[in-house]
Amino acid sequence: MAVKERVRVGGRSARIQSAVHDAVRRLSAETDRDELTVPQIAAEAGVTPSTIYRRWGDLAALLADVAVERLRPIADPEDTGAVTSDLRAFIEQFMEEMSSPVGRALVRDVFSPPGETYPVQCGGFTREHLTTIVSRAKARGEAAFDIDEVIDHVVAPIIYHILYGDRELTLDYCHALLDRVQSMPAETARPASRSLSPGARSRDPLAPQ
Amino acid sequence: MAVKERVRVGGRSARIQSAVHDAVRRLSAETDRDELTVPQIAAEAGVTPSTIYRRWGDLAALLADVAVERLRPIADPEDTGAVTSDLRAFIEQFMEEMSSPVGRALVRDVFSPPGETYPVQCGGFTREHLTTIVSRAKARGEAAFDIDEVIDHVVAPIIYHILYGDRELTLDYCHALLDRVQSMPAETARPASRSLSPGARSRDPLAPQ
Repeated sequence: MAVKERVRVGGRSARIQSAVHDAVRRLSAETDRDELTVPQIAAEAGVTPSTIYRRWGDLAALLADVAVERLRPIADPEDTGAVTSDLRAFIEQFMEEMSSPVGRALVRDVFSPPGETYPVQCGGFTREHLTTIVSRAKARGEAAFDIDEVIDHVVAPIIYHILYGDRELTLDYCHALLDRVQSMPAETARPASRSLSPGARSRDPLAPQ
Repeated sequence: MAVKERVRVGGRSARIQSAVHDAVRRLSAETDRDELTVPQIAAEAGVTPSTIYRRWGDLAALLADVAVERLRPIADPEDTGAVTSDLRAFIEQFMEEMSSPVGRALVRDVFSPPGETYPVQCGGFTREHLTTIVSRAKARGEAAFDIDEVIDHVVAPIIYHILYGDRELTLDYCHALLDRVQSMPAETARPASRSLSPGARSRDPLAPQ
């Protein structure tokens, strides 16, 4: 569920958002997150529960909104002077942050509400960082990598293993993913174009029979 | 949260599980899933709410358990007579099922409870199918693919885009992912070994300061 539209812009609305987000962060630090309730958060933030329901819809959407803010980058990726090391530094940090206990909990919160509002924002943060690194590379006259390629073959496997919990994520593994992308010939490295396939979602083989 | 241990094995326990799972499936078909409650499911299944809490712990764990059962394969992957077409048929079906509206909702349910009990089971279903295809290939005397490679570079990008909602999944895209794995030279195609990195999870850069 998206953050509801038509919230008042500016002073009071921003103060409520900030108070409620802060309350969630304080309570999450001391309480099992799965025990959090809207009335408890409202009391901590000094607002009424209906303020929260009106603005976010439900607890899952509020927790996802807080998680997106926690995951929002506060700075550009590190400038190490060369594209390969810029990318490596960014991916190492991404893997370390996302696979930490707090990172895993935030990722879970982001995917918890229905719809793609919150996941799309988080995916966008990663893409923006990669775009910054590519722009810097071009400014330096370096050959840049393909952003979709890095998302599909470096970022996606990292996120997959975090979510499915089926392998330990090590720096060796991270470097092997990067080496593989960087050693790919350009013509193979490009994924298919983003054409839309009409009817791709029309059948639903898992729908109840 | 894991399905609690010590449930009575056999007749009554199995009947309760079946009645509760069926109730969730019926109610999900007619109600917005995000409106489901434990008392409502209990009433539909003819059990008490405390039976559900005792056995599953909470609603998220129950929905994840039901989702895992829905995602559990009911048959081996199709035997098309050759490894390349076996893999293509399996991946096409996987993408179609997982990206359908019902598939997306089930994936969301699987990741909703804390812990990795349910995701590990689902990831295991995919790995088992790929193992079956590899075993068949070996029995036919064909060169087989690397299972980790297919998970990292075909399955993971598909799941990533389903979760992040950032691109349409088309058959062209699916085939490009497969072609890329199959054209990789063997030495590059192998990911790093599964060594454990001591302390890989020791720092938590997203923990509250």
